[in-house]
Amino acid sequence: MFQKQKRHSELPPIRQTAEEFTVVDGESYLDEIFKSDMGISRSFSRFQLSHEEYEENYGRVIRGLLATGKHKFFVAVDKYGRYLGHVWVCLKIDTVDFVPSAYIYDIETLFPGIGIGSALIERAEEWARKMGTMKISLRVDVNNPARKWYSEKGYSERAIIMEKLL
Amino acid sequence: MFQKQKRHSELPPIRQTAEEFTVVDGESYLDEIFKSDMGISRSFSRFQLSHEEYEENYGRVIRGLLATGKHKFFVAVDKYGRYLGHVWVCLKIDTVDFVPSAYIYDIETLFPGIGIGSALIERAEEWARKMGTMKISLRVDVNNPARKWYSEKGYSERAIIMEKLL
Repeated sequence: MFQKQKRHSELPPIRQTAEEFTVVDGESYLDEIFKSDMGISRSFSRFQLSHEEYEENYGRVIRGLLATGKHKFFVAVDKYGRYLGHVWVCLKIDTVDFVPSAYIYDIETLFPGIGIGSALIERAEEWARKMGTMKISLRVDVNNPARKWYSEKGYSERAIIMEKLL
Repeated sequence: MFQKQKRHSELPPIRQTAEEFTVVDGESYLDEIFKSDMGISRSFSRFQLSHEEYEENYGRVIRGLLATGKHKFFVAVDKYGRYLGHVWVCLKIDTVDFVPSAYIYDIETLFPGIGIGSALIERAEEWARKMGTMKISLRVDVNNPARKWYSEKGYSERAIIMEKLL
């Protein structure tokens, strides 16, 4: 399906091919997904961690999340199968409503504004619906402009995560 | 320490003795804690579940939460050792800051307004600090008046849980 045999130097720049993306199962892209996410997530931490500490803690968090629930990954790829973005969704019993629910643990796109995020979130919702869940949730930082984007996608604000530094 | 041998009918009404509460380790009160919480939590669910479904899902949620992290329970009790409220706190690596963090999974008091909640949250924070965590977090529904109370306790709003019914 994908022309993976081509050397990367022979392919057109990824920005040019990104607009004709497709969304496919992401399980064979996990290395790429977590490598991308590990870089992005680091910028959200407000604590000074050494590279080693961060990598170790990141690995522990991911393994902890993967240990419970049923997980599904989708990726957006260009026609050469190159990674453009991903969504990670997990099924669990919700801790507030006590019904089967889906959580979007992560959604990322390398190229915002061309519909990759929309296609990924729709695919995640479609999968969650098919799996029999009654709702889908996600967490977003209070200052993240994505709040508006999620709201346009039909998400409403349900709860607040409050925190105190010790 | 407590005069547990007295028959309940011989004790004064719990409302009278609640004001002179103390906070103690809660591990021997787990049955009472989860029984109390199972009743309270049901009122937060917006879905119609049969009693059996709710009990089963509640049990799965609690077992799932207990399966990861290091947990600590404190209870407030009167001088007869009667349960007045509890806090459940858990240590994990935070999924955003990637540092050791504490989460308050649950805090409840049978008698609001007499300082039980304040004493419980302070004890949870003291324990979390002693365990080397750098922050403590909790989740509160957007419409819950407790938001103001947490804010007075030094908690700030960090993230939003958004959701969509499927």
